[in-house]
Amino acid sequence: MTGTIVERVAAAVDADRLSRRHEALAAIGGLQPSGLSREAYTEADFEARRLVVSWAEARGYLAFIDPIGNMFFRRADDDRPEPPLVIGSHIDSQPAGGPYDGQFGVLAAWETVEALEDAGAEMRVPLEVAIWANEEGSRFQPTTMGSAVFAGRLPLEEALGSRDTQGRTVGQELSRLRPALSGVADRPLGFPIAAFLEAHIEQGPILERHGTPIGVVTSIQGLRWFTVEVTGSTGHAGTTPVADRRDAFVAATEMAAALRELMDDPGDTVRFTIGRFEVRPNAPNTIPGSVLFTIDFRHPDQEVLRRLGDQVEPICRARAGGCEVVVRETLDAPPTALDPAISRAISQAATALGIAQEEITSGATHDAKYLAMVCPTGMVFVPCRNGISHSVLEHVEPEQMTLGTRVLAGATARLLTDAQR
Amino acid sequence: MTGTIVERVAAAVDADRLSRRHEALAAIGGLQPSGLSREAYTEADFEARRLVVSWAEARGYLAFIDPIGNMFFRRADDDRPEPPLVIGSHIDSQPAGGPYDGQFGVLAAWETVEALEDAGAEMRVPLEVAIWANEEGSRFQPTTMGSAVFAGRLPLEEALGSRDTQGRTVGQELSRLRPALSGVADRPLGFPIAAFLEAHIEQGPILERHGTPIGVVTSIQGLRWFTVEVTGSTGHAGTTPVADRRDAFVAATEMAAALRELMDDPGDTVRFTIGRFEVRPNAPNTIPGSVLFTIDFRHPDQEVLRRLGDQVEPICRARAGGCEVVVRETLDAPPTALDPAISRAISQAATALGIAQEEITSGATHDAKYLAMVCPTGMVFVPCRNGISHSVLEHVEPEQMTLGTRVLAGATARLLTDAQR
Repeated sequence: MTGTIVERVAAAVDADRLSRRHEALAAIGGLQPSGLSREAYTEADFEARRLVVSWAEARGYLAFIDPIGNMFFRRADDDRPEPPLVIGSHIDSQPAGGPYDGQFGVLAAWETVEALEDAGAEMRVPLEVAIWANEEGSRFQPTTMGSAVFAGRLPLEEALGSRDTQGRTVGQELSRLRPALSGVADRPLGFPIAAFLEAHIEQGPILERHGTPIGVVTSIQGLRWFTVEVTGSTGHAGTTPVADRRDAFVAATEMAAALRELMDDPGDTVRFTIGRFEVRPNAPNTIPGSVLFTIDFRHPDQEVLRRLGDQVEPICRARAGGCEVVVRETLDAPPTALDPAISRAISQAATALGIAQEEITSGATHDAKYLAMVCPTGMVFVPCRNGISHSVLEHVEPEQMTLGTRVLAGATARLLTDAQR
Repeated sequence: MTGTIVERVAAAVDADRLSRRHEALAAIGGLQPSGLSREAYTEADFEARRLVVSWAEARGYLAFIDPIGNMFFRRADDDRPEPPLVIGSHIDSQPAGGPYDGQFGVLAAWETVEALEDAGAEMRVPLEVAIWANEEGSRFQPTTMGSAVFAGRLPLEEALGSRDTQGRTVGQELSRLRPALSGVADRPLGFPIAAFLEAHIEQGPILERHGTPIGVVTSIQGLRWFTVEVTGSTGHAGTTPVADRRDAFVAATEMAAALRELMDDPGDTVRFTIGRFEVRPNAPNTIPGSVLFTIDFRHPDQEVLRRLGDQVEPICRARAGGCEVVVRETLDAPPTALDPAISRAISQAATALGIAQEEITSGATHDAKYLAMVCPTGMVFVPCRNGISHSVLEHVEPEQMTLGTRVLAGATARLLTDAQR
C-alpha cells in the first residue's frame, strides 16, 4: 500500500458494502414507498441492533450494553486500559422519519472500523463503536436520552421511568427487549473516552445550497423543551353556553398563538415548534377537558434562549383563561462548542482527500452535545436533499454517504495514529 | 285501583327499582370515582344491552336487533299488526361521559313498561321499547347513527363502513359482538311507528336554573358537523427555517382562531366546538405534517346555520397558508320541531300529576330528531346538575329521574289508551 494512512484508510472504505448495509438496515422498520419507523425501545430498534451485532461478530468485535441501552463494540482481543476513541451515532428514528438520520452515522462508524483494519492502521488507543439509545425522544422524552444518562446529565432512574403515551416505561421496555440481545454483555454506565466522533446528515439546507459535500461542525445550537398541560372542564358541545365553558383546546391554542408571536424572528434564526398536541377526551361533541402539548425551542445564542424561553410559562399562564396550566421544562441544553482539535483533524482529513468542506453550526441536537461534556468531540455532516429530515421524504445520495464516511475514516485514522494529538 | 289511568300508571312507577337498575346499568363501563365509558359497539355497550334483555325476558318481552344494531323489545304475545308506540333512548356513552345521558331514557322506558302492565293499562296499539345504536358518535361518526339509518337518512352501508381511529368499522364490530346477544332475533331495517317518546336529561342549565322538574321539548336545534384535514410537510424542528415550513399545526390553529371569530355571538346562542384534534406524527421535535379536526356547530335558527356554516370551508381555505385543506361536511341536520300533539300529551300528564313544567328547546341533538321525520315524536327533559353532561361529573338526582319517569309513563298511558289521539 502507498500513500498516507489517511489516504489508505479512506481508500479502504467500500462504497458497495456501505450501500448494501444501508439497505439491509433501512428495511428494519422501513415504510413504503419510503421512510423509516423505528422508534426507541421497540422490536424494530432491537432488531436493527442485532444486525449491527452480526457485523461486529463477523469482525471479531464484542458487543456491550449499558443500563440505559447504549451499545458499544470493541475488538475481542483489545484489552488495553487506555480510554478508547469512540465513533458512532444512533439507530432509532422518528415515528415517520427517514433511514439516514442516525443510521448513516452508525454505518459510517462500522465502515470506518472495517477500513481501518483493512488498511492495517495501527491504533494508538482502543477503538469503540457506539450506538446511543433513544436519540430521537419521540416516544420517550427527553431527546438524546442515552448520551445524557451516559454523561451524567440525566439520572438513570428518571430516564428509566419515562413513559410513552401508552403508559409503558423505558425500564419496562428495556427489560422486555433485553433478551433479544442474548450474546451481548452488560457494561456499567459511563467510562472515560479519549475522543468522540460522529458522522450525521445535516438535516438542514445549508450544505446542499452551497454544493459543499462536507460540513465540519463547530457548534450545536441550544435547546429548551417544555411540556404544557392545560386542564379545563369537559361538557356537552350542543348545550354549554360559551360563558360556562372552560375549553382546554381554546386556551391551549391561544397560548400557542401568543408563543408564536413571542418567537417571531424576522431573521429566521429562532426555531420554535409545537410538535405534539393531545386533546382529551378528543370526541367531536364534547368540549375538550384537557390538552397536553410540547414546545421545542432552539437558538445558537444562550442569551436569546434564556430571554425568550423564560417567557414561555408566564405567557401560558396569561392565556389560560379559566383553565389551569402546568408548564414543565423537560430539557435545557445550552449551545455547545465542539472541540477545535477534533474539528481540525476532520478538516485536515477532508483536505488531504481533496473533498470540499465548510464549517457549520448544527441546528439539530445530537448525542455529540452530551459527549462534548465528557471528552473532546467532533462531528462530520453530509448534505441531505432539500434539507428535509424527520420525514419519510428524507434522502441522501449514496455518493454523499461515501464521501462523509471517507472523511470520518480519515479523521479517525489521523487521531488514532497521530502521536501529536 | 282508583284515579285516572295516568295517575295509576304514574303511581306504579317504582322509584327503588328505577334506582337499583340505574346502579346496575351504570356499573357496566363505570369509571371511578364517577362517570361512564361505554362507547358504541364495544363489549361494554353489548354487556349493557344484555342486562336490558334480561329485564325484558323477565317481563315476557322478546328482543330484536336490526342491521345497524338498534334494539327493540315487545311483548311475546302481542302480534297485532298496527304500528307500535315506541319509547326509548340510547345506551352508549361518551369516552368519558356520565351514566344519565341516554341511560336514563332507557331506564324510564322500561319502568314505563312495568308500570303500564302493573297498572293494568289496556294498550290501544302495541308498545315497544327502543335502544338506538351509537347516539354519541364519539367513536364512529356521525352522531345519532342508529336512528339516522332507521329513518332512511343515512345509508346503511355508509354507516357500517364508518371507521374508528384504530381503523375498525362499525360492520366489523357488529359482526364481532353480535354473538353476545344470542337470544335476540334479527329484524329488518325500519317499520311504521305510531308515535315515539323519549325521556332524556337536559344536558344544559335551564331547568335547574328555573327550578323546573320537567321540560316539554318543543324543538331540537340544528347541527352541522365538519371534518377538516390539513396537510403540510413534516420536517426537523431544529433545522427547518420558518420560511421553508408547511406546519399543519400552525395552519389548523389559525383556522380554528378564524372560525371562533366567525362564530362569536354576544347573545351566546351559537354553539361552536372543536372537540377532536389529531396531530401527525405528534412528536416533539418534528414539524406536524398533518392535522385532522372536527367542528360541531349548532343553532336553533336554520338561516344562521346556513349563513355561518357555509363560511367554514372558505375560512379554512383562506387560512391554509402553504398547506392543503379538505373540508368535509359529515352531518347537516336542520332544526327539528317536535309534534304538538305529543307535547300536549306530555304536558297534560305533568299537569294531571301536579308536576311543574316548562317548554324548552333542546340544545343537544337526539335520536328523536330522526324519529320526528317518520312519526309524531315528543321528548321529556329532566334537569341535571350544573347543566353538565359529556363529563364524568354528570349527575341527576334520583327524585328528578322518578318525576321524569312518572311523566313519561303518564304521557305514554294517555297516548296508548286515549282513542282521541
